[in-house]
Amino acid sequence: MSIVYITRKERFNAAHRLFRPEYSDEQNLKVFGKCSNPNWHGHNYLLHVTVKGEVKEKTGFVVDLKKLSRIINERVIYYLDHKNINLEVPFMRGKLASTENLAVSIWHELEDEIAGLGAALHCVKVEETENNMAEYFGK
Amino acid sequence: MSIVYITRKERFNAAHRLFRPEYSDEQNLKVFGKCSNPNWHGHNYLLHVTVKGEVKEKTGFVVDLKKLSRIINERVIYYLDHKNINLEVPFMRGKLASTENLAVSIWHELEDEIAGLGAALHCVKVEETENNMAEYFGK
Amino acid sequence: MSIVYITRKERFNAAHRLFRPEYSDEQNLKVFGKCSNPNWHGHNYLLHVTVKGEVKEKTGFVVDLKKLSRIINERVIYYLDHKNINLEVPFMRGKLASTENLAVSIWHELEDEIAGLGAALHCVKVEETENNMAEYFGK
Amino acid sequence: MSIVYITRKERFNAAHRLFRPEYSDEQNLKVFGKCSNPNWHGHNYLLHVTVKGEVKEKTGFVVDLKKLSRIINERVIYYLDHKNINLEVPFMRGKLASTENLAVSIWHELEDEIAGLGAALHCVKVEETENNMAEYFGK
Amino acid sequence: MSIVYITRKERFNAAHRLFRPEYSDEQNLKVFGKCSNPNWHGHNYLLHVTVKGEVKEKTGFVVDLKKLSRIINERVIYYLDHKNINLEVPFMRGKLASTENLAVSIWHELEDEIAGLGAALHCVKVEETENNMAEYFGK
Amino acid sequence: MSIVYITRKERFNAAHRLFRPEYSDEQNLKVFGKCSNPNWHGHNYLLHVTVKGEVKEKTGFVVDLKKLSRIINERVIYYLDHKNINLEVPFMRGKLASTENLAVSIWHELEDEIAGLGAALHCVKVEETENNMAEYFGK
Repeated sequence: MSIVYITRKERFNAAHRLFRPEYSDEQNLKVFGKCSNPNWHGHNYLLHVTVKGEVKEKTGFVVDLKKLSRIINERVIYYLDHKNINLEVPFMRGKLASTENLAVSIWHELEDEIAGLGAALHCVKVEETENNMAEYFGK
Repeated sequence: MSIVYITRKERFNAAHRLFRPEYSDEQNLKVFGKCSNPNWHGHNYLLHVTVKGEVKEKTGFVVDLKKLSRIINERVIYYLDHKNINLEVPFMRGKLASTENLAVSIWHELEDEIAGLGAALHCVKVEETENNMAEYFGK
Repeated sequence: MSIVYITRKERFNAAHRLFRPEYSDEQNLKVFGKCSNPNWHGHNYLLHVTVKGEVKEKTGFVVDLKKLSRIINERVIYYLDHKNINLEVPFMRGKLASTENLAVSIWHELEDEIAGLGAALHCVKVEETENNMAEYFGK
Repeated sequence: MSIVYITRKERFNAAHRLFRPEYSDEQNLKVFGKCSNPNWHGHNYLLHVTVKGEVKEKTGFVVDLKKLSRIINERVIYYLDHKNINLEVPFMRGKLASTENLAVSIWHELEDEIAGLGAALHCVKVEETENNMAEYFGK
Repeated sequence: MSIVYITRKERFNAAHRLFRPEYSDEQNLKVFGKCSNPNWHGHNYLLHVTVKGEVKEKTGFVVDLKKLSRIINERVIYYLDHKNINLEVPFMRGKLASTENLAVSIWHELEDEIAGLGAALHCVKVEETENNMAEYFGK
Repeated sequence: MSIVYITRKERFNAAHRLFRPEYSDEQNLKVFGKCSNPNWHGHNYLLHVTVKGEVKEKTGFVVDLKKLSRIINERVIYYLDHKNINLEVPFMRGKLASTENLAVSIWHELEDEIAGLGAALHCVKVEETENNMAEYFGK
């Protein structure tokens, strides 16, 4: 039986701000730079979800990518796309809206659902810009 | 003398919202869809500025791209990058924050400055996502 | 009133073959090369539809891109995606399945519908591979 | 001695269909969706082959990429490019034409040849579309 | 008869330097910046050649892209790829090695050959980096 | 505490040549092909630096990407961009200017500086062209 890694890419466009509420705007500017703008800014995020598992003989699939895409959309994209990450996303509540925290939080939204498909979540990669990205492998 | 078109690509990450202030949130949602989210969303915008002119014999340039880049950054990117297009950008004040209006407004910010380089602004292209873009040719 | 050009990008994955039915396989191979393989081959096509019109003051739009996307999907993508261009696409019947003919035929499928949105179709661009593309401007 | 991973990217354009011959068209449609179209569809596939080995002091290379490219072309691309994966590719005979199975089968075509270059095959990655890909590491 | 524009993309990797031989290194540095480095630097150039013509009924082609590619390779890429643009390229001799001059010079290498295919050269686009490009339309 | 991998992408444009000084031009051509051109050629290199570490609770960051970018620019890009890799880059002196050796040498320039940020260098990836790349993980 061959173990293969399958990746599905999805997208979301969102606003965010990097800041600590107990800091003044000046302190936030010092720590987070222009990403702390109190009026928000935003990105076209790319999300890559990699799943690991045996290739099923019946289908030639590790998982049905349509099912994987549906799970990612229902559990993650629905809450993030065209939203304000700081104000509106349940699984980011109380967390700094960094690319790192997005990757970790998205992992926890997806892990059990993907196990239900008979495969294991392997990596969540979030690209904030073409130059900056974060990857989380669940540890 | 050869007439050549030179294009410089720059980037800005910004938040925006599509809405008319005299509409209710429900009316805005009906007209502008999820782009009207009152909590904002955002994009990694790509800006392509195309300039037309004679190739100067002394330099082999239509314009010095470092000077063109500096003008675009000082007149446009400085005001848009990591900003809220609806709330903070002087040349978008009172305008709907659509890709079309961005292209037209950026044209007017750049036209005279580029004429000062001895060339003519030919096209401003704004890409909001990999699927959506607007081009303005000054007419 | 500003005239702006708006482009929407869509995708379709299809099989095709370049051949003339009155030719033998050998003749087709000579004229069309490996693209004439009788067992078909295929591509991830990119389709760029550019529309020209006035920016409407009420919306900041030339056309609503959601409406433009719906028209492209209902009139073009629905018939091409995951299809055999030679065997199954009504608007390609009896035509050589070249990128050129795709661009021209897609133009004729879209022209009237886009006029109905209050704008004018300006260009249909079809990319067959990252190296080969065709553009048609309606003339 | 430094161990470095070298990746070579190649391309092939092919037709395929996902289906089980013992199923009816309706059953295949239910399991494989529009990918089961009996008239085929196709893709521009990207193939990334990653090889692991010591950097040779004489050349600064892990392997000569021209030799690696030649092996990939002679053993894999020659059989896949402008072909029908289900009907014409010896190493896919009797297998479901999924991205997973392509990655595993291409691995077995390349493994020994690459060992002959004095390096080890590390990963075969096949991208079917910009959103879907499979990776196989030989286990 | 439909007039269609066909574009073929090719690539070359080359070294160059922007400088005037009658200037000192200091003067060249002042005018051309780091691009004047006397020890050269280089780029992965992209070349897009756009050809305009009637779609031939017999082939569905404006021109056979294999023939177009062969002309571009024999007349242009052969002289530029893995070369020093200032020292080794016959059609750039005595010219500043700018993107603008490359586009104009490549036009003159290709114009007659493409006329021989029964179509007209429309545009030569040279991309030096992802941010800088030049286009020449023959005037 | 979550361990996340952060990647920063930077760019440099440089000239190089693959050759052994004790070989004749003919021998170098035989071993290194057109990459041995004595007049140099060049590339737009992409550099991806991946860093591994705990997400800090105070910032939501593994490392501040502005600091990571500054280190990469001061220690690596400054020495490579618009330079001749064979003649001018201190950390490549006496080494074959291959993509493999670039990846290993850049690793050694960055390792300690990144440790000073409270994280660990995980991977240096150098892309020479869109088809060729090397990755080094420090072993």
